[in-house]
Amino acid sequence: MKRREFFTSSSAGLLAAGSVLRNQQAAPFSKPRPSAKNIIFMVSDGMSTGTLNMADLLLSRREGRESSWMSLYREQTGRRAFMETSSFNALVTDSAAGSSAWGGGRKVPNGNLNVNADGSFNKPILQKFRQYGKSVGCVTSVTITHATPAGFCINNKSRGDESEIAAQYLDLRFDVMMGGGAEFFMGDKREDKTDLFSAYQQGGYQVVRDRDAMLGLQNLQKPVLGVFCEGALPYALDAAATPDLQKSVPALAEMTRKTLELLSKNPKGFAVQIEGGKVDWAAHSNDAGGLLYDQIAFDEAVRVALDFAEKDKETLVIITTDHGNANPGLFGSDRQFDLLQKFKHTNNWILGDHQEIPSASQLIDRIAFAQGYAIKKDEAEKLVSLFSAKSESGLYIANKPLFRELALIQSHYTGIGWAGMDHSADYVELAMFGPGSEGLKPFVRNTDLHNFMLDVTGTVRA
Amino acid sequence: MKRREFFTSSSAGLLAAGSVLRNQQAAPFSKPRPSAKNIIFMVSDGMSTGTLNMADLLLSRREGRESSWMSLYREQTGRRAFMETSSFNALVTDSAAGSSAWGGGRKVPNGNLNVNADGSFNKPILQKFRQYGKSVGCVTSVTITHATPAGFCINNKSRGDESEIAAQYLDLRFDVMMGGGAEFFMGDKREDKTDLFSAYQQGGYQVVRDRDAMLGLQNLQKPVLGVFCEGALPYALDAAATPDLQKSVPALAEMTRKTLELLSKNPKGFAVQIEGGKVDWAAHSNDAGGLLYDQIAFDEAVRVALDFAEKDKETLVIITTDHGNANPGLFGSDRQFDLLQKFKHTNNWILGDHQEIPSASQLIDRIAFAQGYAIKKDEAEKLVSLFSAKSESGLYIANKPLFRELALIQSHYTGIGWAGMDHSADYVELAMFGPGSEGLKPFVRNTDLHNFMLDVTGTVRA
Repeated sequence: MKRREFFTSSSAGLLAAGSVLRNQQAAPFSKPRPSAKNIIFMVSDGMSTGTLNMADLLLSRREGRESSWMSLYREQTGRRAFMETSSFNALVTDSAAGSSAWGGGRKVPNGNLNVNADGSFNKPILQKFRQYGKSVGCVTSVTITHATPAGFCINNKSRGDESEIAAQYLDLRFDVMMGGGAEFFMGDKREDKTDLFSAYQQGGYQVVRDRDAMLGLQNLQKPVLGVFCEGALPYALDAAATPDLQKSVPALAEMTRKTLELLSKNPKGFAVQIEGGKVDWAAHSNDAGGLLYDQIAFDEAVRVALDFAEKDKETLVIITTDHGNANPGLFGSDRQFDLLQKFKHTNNWILGDHQEIPSASQLIDRIAFAQGYAIKKDEAEKLVSLFSAKSESGLYIANKPLFRELALIQSHYTGIGWAGMDHSADYVELAMFGPGSEGLKPFVRNTDLHNFMLDVTGTVRA
Repeated sequence: MKRREFFTSSSAGLLAAGSVLRNQQAAPFSKPRPSAKNIIFMVSDGMSTGTLNMADLLLSRREGRESSWMSLYREQTGRRAFMETSSFNALVTDSAAGSSAWGGGRKVPNGNLNVNADGSFNKPILQKFRQYGKSVGCVTSVTITHATPAGFCINNKSRGDESEIAAQYLDLRFDVMMGGGAEFFMGDKREDKTDLFSAYQQGGYQVVRDRDAMLGLQNLQKPVLGVFCEGALPYALDAAATPDLQKSVPALAEMTRKTLELLSKNPKGFAVQIEGGKVDWAAHSNDAGGLLYDQIAFDEAVRVALDFAEKDKETLVIITTDHGNANPGLFGSDRQFDLLQKFKHTNNWILGDHQEIPSASQLIDRIAFAQGYAIKKDEAEKLVSLFSAKSESGLYIANKPLFRELALIQSHYTGIGWAGMDHSADYVELAMFGPGSEGLKPFVRNTDLHNFMLDVTGTVRA
């Protein structure tokens, strides 16, 4: 008997008794009553279940407190759902299609920002909210021109053209845009040599370039562009060990707090996306310290948002991720896991910034300093050999085998394992808090959130 | 500035505004009103998020239907929660402590069955239900003496002593016990040479040893012991390709259907545990076909339970897992994933039952026959070399490196990756359907379920 026949015949009796209802496709969201004035949409990019779980466990063991995200569930103040994350052309989405699903309401091909397979455009949600008088913005720990913020703002066939995206933002005049990516605005870094920072200033923006200037912002009489460094902002763990970085570059929670302060002055309300973007980058590089401390930094921003919403009463907070990444998990002992508490630096810090290839003993010392354990000589020699084997680059890392090997070695000390170095097709966690959250179904498509956000704020869908 | 200081000082302002409420520990379940007469407790053992997700995707792409588990959410007929899974002495539980948390209501050390660290006992929940007049039982696809069923039935310091557990069951006279593990009942296999099958028969049990006898059971005038093979039942995928196995060994859904038919004759109600135990074994061996088709077989049993409960109206169905395992995920293309639809056999079938070490070309042929893709010669040679390297045995497999290597090779064809070969500390999925489910909180401890089951059925806690 063929397998297919078996499954059909052996379960025929069972199927006959099965509920027809249960086999139907999920209905779209029932249209919620307009009940929220503001939307805070929070994305921990590329967050698998284990990432959320281990960050909660790390906080609990290190500081005796739970994560703000989990507290929503433990105290029954938040609602939760599974969300499927596929794109137009794949079960495994990229961040451009992921953000476009929310931002434009339609699944688009991977790599596209609100551009359909036939080249047509879907109007990004922050443009819709803006049109109806709300203040809007994006905040991220990676480049402000990156796929996840861009998916709420613009249409572009190619997420990779961050220079063009930086130029596209200028005309939008969105109220607050904050993150990294200075190289896409600097005349001497851009291919077309246009000094976009000057263009933004001349266009009437308040342009801020460091933490103090950001903290000093008073109002939105002029829109805000905050760009604090080239590339992404530093990992939270590395920043914590580097006082200079802390002075110049704000934490995600600090940007969130200032942004909410500014946006909430509009009596017609606001909508903002807040992204913990380096959670995804850390997962791509199998970097446990980068991953968990950036997830905690994201959770600090969640706390800021929840505190705001608790007082405000008119704000819906949505907390989720665009897709899983690397599906990490704790497989080892409690003692191994507790090593994470002693980490001073990320794997990206350990493996980056070498003028020349380090020796095995230099690597042993660097890892002991950064993460508090002594790897073996043969482990260090394997790493050294991979420094020169730069044949396979990964997303956001130049040398995938080198990062993979360090993660493998590290797993013997921390007990943390990784199933890959890329996005996964996992269904992901979605939480809501505030007015409108009662309309959340237990299973949603990523695209469902678009109209949900419009409907819950009473914004016209078109 | 030290890292800890940074996190404290930089977030001081945020914390000050934080809700005191959100920082408190979760309160235990509020005591639900007695509303259910029957409990069906379903366990897909060792099921990570990706296991649930990929099985749903596989069903959807192969048969155009969703899993019964997911249908509960898509149609909003079921409630769901995150469940933490730690044991008394570790964030990563084993199945004995996992089942004991539900079965005895207390976290016990890994390896123990309802025995605390100080040696004291916690009364297993099926003994409690039995005491109050309910019919009780366990059904599993692994040995009936395995940790997960045993955790609902007995006290034992060592889950490994399955011979003793087989003897312990005799006196309990539970109404239905079904699964594998004949070797723990056979006089010529047991160390003490006791023929337990004869003892059960002389003790007044109906002893059934194959599928037909099981299907022919009519009533519970005498308790039922069904043991269908030595060791665990075959993987669903291998059974589907082996007509002889299908005739002799029932599917999990078939056992579930018969068990519900028998147990539901008691006007005082029943409580039963149904375990898809080989999901865990497949995860331990990184066996994608074993994992997903056994998860689907479990889901068929879920359908039987839901159909029963839908008609019955007095049955609470609880569907969950005891812990994550291996955190698998789909990282590849849709085309790669669709290869799974062509699988005829598991990795355990490919690597098991060799009289002598196979040649590379034999392995290439065997894998092509079993799973429909042709591995490369050097990949096959690597596998051959590992056949003789039996230095490191894993749980339920004799040769961990061999299974790990096949999974790694397979991942190039299927796009499925694995983060380990052991249990993870992930928070896991928990679903409820039926009366009482409205009392489910969004985050629970594994131990919370014990009193929840007692309270929802109006059973005295003591």
